Amino acid sequence: MTYCCALRLKDGLVFISDTRTNAGVDHISVFRKLYSFGIEGERFITIQTSGNLATTQSLIGHLKNQLDTHQEPNLYSVHTMFEVAELVGKTLKTVIADVTSDTQEQSNYYCSLLVGGQIKDQEISLYNIYPQGNFICATSDTPYFQIGESKYGKPILDRALSYEMPLEEALRCSLISFDSTLRSNVSVGMPLDALIYQKDSYHIPTGKRIDEEDPYFEHISKSWSDTLKKGLQDLPVPTSDYFE
Amino acid sequence: MTYCCALRLKDGLVFISDTRTNAGVDHISVFRKLYSFGIEGERFITIQTSGNLATTQSLIGHLKNQLDTHQEPNLYSVHTMFEVAELVGKTLKTVIADVTSDTQEQSNYYCSLLVGGQIKDQEISLYNIYPQGNFICATSDTPYFQIGESKYGKPILDRALSYEMPLEEALRCSLISFDSTLRSNVSVGMPLDALIYQKDSYHIPTGKRIDEEDPYFEHISKSWSDTLKKGLQDLPVPTSDYFE
Repeated sequence: MTYCCALRLKDGLVFISDTRTNAGVDHISVFRKLYSFGIEGERFITIQTSGNLATTQSLIGHLKNQLDTHQEPNLYSVHTMFEVAELVGKTLKTVIADVTSDTQEQSNYYCSLLVGGQIKDQEISLYNIYPQGNFICATSDTPYFQIGESKYGKPILDRALSYEMPLEEALRCSLISFDSTLRSNVSVGMPLDALIYQKDSYHIPTGKRIDEEDPYFEHISKSWSDTLKKGLQDLPVPTSDYFE
Repeated sequence: MTYCCALRLKDGLVFISDTRTNAGVDHISVFRKLYSFGIEGERFITIQTSGNLATTQSLIGHLKNQLDTHQEPNLYSVHTMFEVAELVGKTLKTVIADVTSDTQEQSNYYCSLLVGGQIKDQEISLYNIYPQGNFICATSDTPYFQIGESKYGKPILDRALSYEMPLEEALRCSLISFDSTLRSNVSVGMPLDALIYQKDSYHIPTGKRIDEEDPYFEHISKSWSDTLKKGLQDLPVPTSDYFE
């Protein structure tokens, strides 16, 4: 499985993906699921992938190939983030249709995507693209999307995240969401890829790979356990009617 | 859907179940999913149910009917908690087989169960019974089981719960697990049923129904949100390489 999470906030975008893939429990590998594209100073695009690895690698391969061979449209020629989402969705649909035209059989090759970014003088955008190529867009009401093993890490986002939150605090929140998932589900695994995009910077960030020895991640993981344990102890004792 | 959670700890057993059932989003109802049996001073048995409501109600109906009509074996005649689990598992298998003998078709009528309790002069026990009637047993290594929508509420149990934990602290921990699930998944809903059994008491607890106005639950739900928000703010600021 996979866990990817993306936030679209007042000040920018936060993306985190794990890297574990598995075909059964005895075939575990590390593959990147976070890809960046862009033209420094003009546009920045990130794609996160979950699902069939052959499909997601083929999709990224086609998108890169469109750029390399100057096919139109491509990620650098489209005019808006909406057109980016359309191009990615259509390319995904083609990739799956190339494997089989049987729509029942196609579900074996499904993948889901998160696509976020910004093009010069436009709003930052975040899309959740379905295997069928259609998509929804994040808003200030629903500032985050998840794909893959999303349930373990959802409560902390639902409880603490808000559209107005500063990026570095939102990053902490989503790292805790990942830490909770990593502890409870062995199909999501280190290293993680994290990427922060500052709104209106039009700078393509390098991103950060977080492995098991990352001192910051290790520190917040340990601190968070202590916070929860202490928080539980500090809650008032249940009323006596619970014990009747 | 459903969320039920049961803990088998050094000092006793903790059971919590929600009560929401749904057949599609436009047919939501409240049904109890936690049932108690026992002979005061001699044995205490609790059954929690998840899955097809007709199956779980039929199962409980059969178990009660076995008692009412003095059929052998029944929940009060078997000698050990292992035999309780066997009886419940076999009765469940019969209930499903009565609907259809087609094993493919049977999966439409599946349910999962948690069965815990204590019989005089024996250990407390907790079983997770599968739709096929077979089961596994909780140990001090794995002191809890969940059925239904289990993922949202698993991180807090994995991080904070331990076999040695006092019952009232474990109760708080599992109430937080429920609060996280209620906030993130609309298919799990109030009221909740909670039941605490003190080891070697052989007392059949009344249990507590927790509704939306329950002052204790409301208080810890609010406090927990504050704990998490403050905990996030208190985490150290991410190192600068996260922003490159």
